[in-house]
Amino acid sequence: MPPTRDKPMDKTAWKKMKESRKAVKEMKMLRQVAKLEKAAKAAEAAQNNQEENVRSLKRSTLSIAIPSSILENAQSPELRTYLAGQIARAACVFKVDEVVVFDDIGTCAPNDVTFQIEAAADSGVDHKTPIRRSCVQMARILQYLECPQYLRRFFFPLHKDLQYAGLLNPLDAPHHLRQDDDFPFREGVVSNQPTKQGRGSLVNVGLTRDVLIDRQLEAGLRVTVKLLPPKEGSKKMQGCVVTPQTPEAVTGRYWGYSVRLASSLSAVFSQAPYSGGYDLTLGTSDKGENIDELVLSGGLPTHQHALVVFGGLAGLEGALEADPVIQVDDPSLLFDYYFNTCPDQGSRTIRTEEALLISLAALRPLLVQVNSSNGS
Amino acid sequence: MPPTRDKPMDKTAWKKMKESRKAVKEMKMLRQVAKLEKAAKAAEAAQNNQEENVRSLKRSTLSIAIPSSILENAQSPELRTYLAGQIARAACVFKVDEVVVFDDIGTCAPNDVTFQIEAAADSGVDHKTPIRRSCVQMARILQYLECPQYLRRFFFPLHKDLQYAGLLNPLDAPHHLRQDDDFPFREGVVSNQPTKQGRGSLVNVGLTRDVLIDRQLEAGLRVTVKLLPPKEGSKKMQGCVVTPQTPEAVTGRYWGYSVRLASSLSAVFSQAPYSGGYDLTLGTSDKGENIDELVLSGGLPTHQHALVVFGGLAGLEGALEADPVIQVDDPSLLFDYYFNTCPDQGSRTIRTEEALLISLAALRPLLVQVNSSNGS
Ligand SMILES: C[S@@+](CC[C@H](N)C(=O)[O-])C[C@H]1O[C@@H](n2cnc3c(N)ncnc32)[C@H](O)[C@@H]1O
Ligand SMILES: C[S@@+](CC[C@H](N)C(=O)[O-])C[C@H]1O[C@@H](n2cnc3c(N)ncnc32)[C@H](O)[C@@H]1O
Repeated sequence: MPPTRDKPMDKTAWKKMKESRKAVKEMKMLRQVAKLEKAAKAAEAAQNNQEENVRSLKRSTLSIAIPSSILENAQSPELRTYLAGQIARAACVFKVDEVVVFDDIGTCAPNDVTFQIEAAADSGVDHKTPIRRSCVQMARILQYLECPQYLRRFFFPLHKDLQYAGLLNPLDAPHHLRQDDDFPFREGVVSNQPTKQGRGSLVNVGLTRDVLIDRQLEAGLRVTVKLLPPKEGSKKMQGCVVTPQTPEAVTGRYWGYSVRLASSLSAVFSQAPYSGGYDLTLGTSDKGENIDELVLSGGLPTHQHALVVFGGLAGLEGALEADPVIQVDDPSLLFDYYFNTCPDQGSRTIRTEEALLISLAALRPLLVQVNSSNGS
Repeated sequence: MPPTRDKPMDKTAWKKMKESRKAVKEMKMLRQVAKLEKAAKAAEAAQNNQEENVRSLKRSTLSIAIPSSILENAQSPELRTYLAGQIARAACVFKVDEVVVFDDIGTCAPNDVTFQIEAAADSGVDHKTPIRRSCVQMARILQYLECPQYLRRFFFPLHKDLQYAGLLNPLDAPHHLRQDDDFPFREGVVSNQPTKQGRGSLVNVGLTRDVLIDRQLEAGLRVTVKLLPPKEGSKKMQGCVVTPQTPEAVTGRYWGYSVRLASSLSAVFSQAPYSGGYDLTLGTSDKGENIDELVLSGGLPTHQHALVVFGGLAGLEGALEADPVIQVDDPSLLFDYYFNTCPDQGSRTIRTEEALLISLAALRPLLVQVNSSNGS
């Protein structure tokens, strides 16, 4: 019997009640844990299934590497921002999985163009390495645009690099869901609202109410959530955390790109996030082989992880010269293929941001061929 | 004998001398005229030869049509300028012959967005027609960038439309010759320096000295000049005026685009500068046919004058709705082909300036095929 204000409980009754409550609580907790374990197993099984699906819906990944020097050549801070936005949009239009921003000039001196990276920005770079300012700015703008609007205030505090973000064209990416979009996956941020121990965390996925996920995670973490039907009798939306690759694998919908910083051209290759690295590497240059000849000779070989690398004002020759590791002079030696993707160009030079759209448009049918002939 | 200060001539001697001088002058003039006629004939013959060559070096022309509304959607005057520059660069990279800037919104009311065209800007539009301000600005920036730097001060006086021209990326066009470039053709402006009647005009072609051409032309006119070896005993550079198409026909070098204004989508077609109009018309839309299927089914038919048309924010549907003449609803009916040039796009929308680079990159090998299989 519960205590009431007017009739105080005696000590024994109190003790008994407390014990039974504790038992109930423990039982509940055990049940909850069992349920969670079950849910986790189901989620894992589902994910494995989903990963099977990766093979049919998206076989190979596409990475692009962009030199950060192009920002340094922009004519105003506004245009520098706009240029980074052009790279982001091109990556989204062509469903790029990974954008590598690399330093193609080299850290001549630890002067004002380089600085200690301050934001964690899970970018794979060791935090002690001084890194070129333009690299960091390009990476930040790429990440900012890739992040769904409703999550930006959590991950992108005011920063000088984003001062002109208002000028950026939105990605219009298919994983940037509006509140009324009905889709089984959503990007979210783990909320700092407390939940009972073992009940999992709440995640803000851009809906009016937070979603309760299957795990206890650190507040502020960005997660990809698979939405589950609410449990009977519960008003809370349920969900489970999946890998960022799962939504595309399951639904075929493009789910954005990741961003990586590389301190040199060689680091683009050596720090690949895929075990075994990239198995198809393409360099781009107006001095490369005519891409039309590749089409005639039967296209690109099958592959899992393609990488397309672009140069800056000084081309890939310049990036190679600045590289502290690679000793060769001829950039074509670094790649499986070295292409002129715009044979017979009318302008003396094609800018990197233009070459990006042109090259990905020219390569798209060739990469598609590989994907579909390779699909199981 | 010439008159001297200390010994005045008598009347008869004076008359005689004058007559003989006149005769000499007349003879000289006659000779000059004969020479000029000979030179003109030779030039004409050369040009005919050159026009023969058109057939082998550049068979078909490529026109693009761009809606001016895209400028109105830009986020700042600087970005509006930059956007027009992106169109100009894409046209140059893909060796476009003609850029048609069309009004895809329609002249709702003669408010501040429309105005009487002030600059002559040989753009084919009757000067009485009110024309959308964004159309005129885009055309002006396109013409400004196409014009070799050394001629800009003659053709582009200070104008608000060009206020941010300093932000524009140069075309780096192959007909923008530096002073020390050695090339048989040059763009020039007819100088206002007087020359003797019948001796032809002087033309500033961006060299230290003006070139004497074979015709007397109005000062301020823009002309394409073929440079000829200086005449024996003369220090003057000689040249003859050719059509703007001649340099490319003779040398294969891309020689820039022309710009035309169209007050509506229908005027893009109906005011074609080619007799017989465009014989291959392509519309672009994410709702078009997959371009990869065209590649599989054998490519584009042979043609003389191709036109590729782009829509604005509201697509070609919007331009069609605004058109006062065309009564159909479905834009695909207007074109020989209606293409999705970026099948399976990752972003929900591709911007016009991106679609331009992507589409021209996707069409390039198809148009090239036609050119070469069609070449004689
Ligand atoms: C300004 S260009 C560098 C200059 C140099 N002429 C070149 O292409 O190596 C910047 C970058 O754009 C790309 N690019 C330019 N023209 C290209 C072409 N025709 N084919 C492929 N990539 C090109 C290359 O990645 C190049 O490093
Ligand atoms: C913002 S889009 C217009 C919106 C509309 N969804 C469309 O494509 O019709 C602007 C223009 O870019 C071009 N465009 C966009 N996506 C395209 C695609 N996948 N294929 C070909 N052209 C495209 C078209 O010319 C279009 O009118």
